[in-house]
Amino acid sequence: MIAAEDVEALARGAAVLGTGGGGDPYVGRLLAEQALREHGPIHLVPPSKLDDDARVFPIAMMGAPTVMVEKTPSVHLIGAAVTALADHLGVTPTHLACIEAGGINSTIPLVAAAQLDLPLVDGDGMGRAFPELQMVLPTLVGVSCSPMSIADEKGNVGMLHTIDNHWSEALARSVTITMGCSAIISNYMLTGAQARDSLVAGTLSLCRRLGERIAAVRAEHGDPVAAAADELGGRLLHVGKVTDVARRTTTGFARGDAMVTGPDGVLELRFQNEHLVALRDGEPLVTTPDLIIVLDTESGEPVTTEALRFGHRVSVIGAPADERWHSPEGLELVGPRYFGYSIDPVRVWGTR
Amino acid sequence: MIAAEDVEALARGAAVLGTGGGGDPYVGRLLAEQALREHGPIHLVPPSKLDDDARVFPIAMMGAPTVMVEKTPSVHLIGAAVTALADHLGVTPTHLACIEAGGINSTIPLVAAAQLDLPLVDGDGMGRAFPELQMVLPTLVGVSCSPMSIADEKGNVGMLHTIDNHWSEALARSVTITMGCSAIISNYMLTGAQARDSLVAGTLSLCRRLGERIAAVRAEHGDPVAAAADELGGRLLHVGKVTDVARRTTTGFARGDAMVTGPDGVLELRFQNEHLVALRDGEPLVTTPDLIIVLDTESGEPVTTEALRFGHRVSVIGAPADERWHSPEGLELVGPRYFGYSIDPVRVWGTR
Repeated sequence: MIAAEDVEALARGAAVLGTGGGGDPYVGRLLAEQALREHGPIHLVPPSKLDDDARVFPIAMMGAPTVMVEKTPSVHLIGAAVTALADHLGVTPTHLACIEAGGINSTIPLVAAAQLDLPLVDGDGMGRAFPELQMVLPTLVGVSCSPMSIADEKGNVGMLHTIDNHWSEALARSVTITMGCSAIISNYMLTGAQARDSLVAGTLSLCRRLGERIAAVRAEHGDPVAAAADELGGRLLHVGKVTDVARRTTTGFARGDAMVTGPDGVLELRFQNEHLVALRDGEPLVTTPDLIIVLDTESGEPVTTEALRFGHRVSVIGAPADERWHSPEGLELVGPRYFGYSIDPVRVWGTR
Repeated sequence: MIAAEDVEALARGAAVLGTGGGGDPYVGRLLAEQALREHGPIHLVPPSKLDDDARVFPIAMMGAPTVMVEKTPSVHLIGAAVTALADHLGVTPTHLACIEAGGINSTIPLVAAAQLDLPLVDGDGMGRAFPELQMVLPTLVGVSCSPMSIADEKGNVGMLHTIDNHWSEALARSVTITMGCSAIISNYMLTGAQARDSLVAGTLSLCRRLGERIAAVRAEHGDPVAAAADELGGRLLHVGKVTDVARRTTTGFARGDAMVTGPDGVLELRFQNEHLVALRDGEPLVTTPDLIIVLDTESGEPVTTEALRFGHRVSVIGAPADERWHSPEGLELVGPRYFGYSIDPVRVWGTR
């Protein structure tokens, strides 16, 4: 069960897994708290408990996090993307799921689950956040993104049937941009068997646990950054002060880079919604698909790319991604070369 | 009936009504001739003969004519837009119709009618060509563009449900751009009663008659330009030589301007796919919604905006648009101010 009281911790943990992207966790938290207070707590179902013939509808917000901060989604229309896809398929949803674990995309599904009175799968399609639609583990097992629905806060709804998941990304991105750079989507409709096979299990529980632990350690004047790294099986990469940030919203994404200067040198972070590459003094330290996470050094609070500011004292941790992302097929989809970096992937050999 | 032998004349006349836009009539002609040879002639039905409960599916190509010249539509997918919309609505189409009369959009519906074995309404939604989706007479009588289908030559299909016809234009335009700047659409599904009420009757017959007359007058060494002006109830505006053309494909349209220098001065044509404003020596001579048509002076062949070349000897004629476009609501939709020109409409007081 997730109740309104759990949302603060869950949203914090989700922002950690959001690796810089996923939108302002505060906005997502407010929306989810309001929905859970109004409709009551929602049921969390582990993927392993799904019947073969369950019908799982993933839901997410698509767009640039920089825009989501200023353009709050219209709450009563969040469920519209699921309803439109379900009507189109003539299928009654039995569960909702998160497409990604990260930022607002871990809390928007709570809102939809509360509104539509459906249980939510405790898992997601990535185990983290990635910026493009086709970057989900269901793609690796051959699940199609199509048909997908895309809805805006004004009441416009599109349904896309595409020849592959890259075309879903391309067409949905252009629709999202025209809708004002943020939209609600539902896609990758999964049977229970497919969901067990392809989702990363337990990510919502992990978000809540992580969020609770950061708060608890901070309250005890401990080291919340170390606690977060431990919870994720990762390690501290770098500590310092933000000395440069360049950020632009272009082609529907928040893109840019940031410098964190500290005793160990200068860490450069490059992002497209999410942090994708961390270079120290020009050398790759960690790359996608592993998680590059920026936390406030003192409080352990996650810092999104759009919240990075000059002078901010931050700690950067690396954490291992789901092992399937390190397969050749996984790296083709989300490795550094896909994003245009001519470097081989560098892993965090963590303990998870 | 329209048979393969009729297509040459019809395509010529359609390019005249295309007022510079609507794509290369030669490409449209080839596609339609091929389809009519393969499937046999198609039936033309005047709007007045439609039963109240007929289900009329308009079809068109959307995009920049400059692109359509190079990216020939995949013939076997032209019907897909209609089929997708019909399936979605759960309605069996009884007739197809042209959304606009102009260029390739008068011949693409012939292809679809032949493929789907459906009669085609002898009429269209504009009585000419206009560049944006909401610019149809059905909009003026409150028919919704939504839901609409949009299909590309690769097999991707989108279905858009929008809150108004301007949103249909905006979302479909961005999808069209991502699909490669041209796509096939079906929208404004009309009952027979609505079609009688809102379509411009007889435009396909007019295209054929106009195309035949230009060819006949030319063969008799007459004046094909004067014949075209007469057929359309318009008048000759300007004769001269193209002395400048600026053209760019941007935001999904072919935009630009051209200068025609002749004994009466310099005529400036401004276009967004279609010619919208003709200024002589800086003074508006004719504006949208009336038709501004460029013909080869010698042959009377229509010249599309993407075929305009320096040195080309052309005649520009103006012809009256359907009277409904001159109403206050019509001018709001397609008058010069909508397109960003701070001028009042200037009409061709023709004889039609």
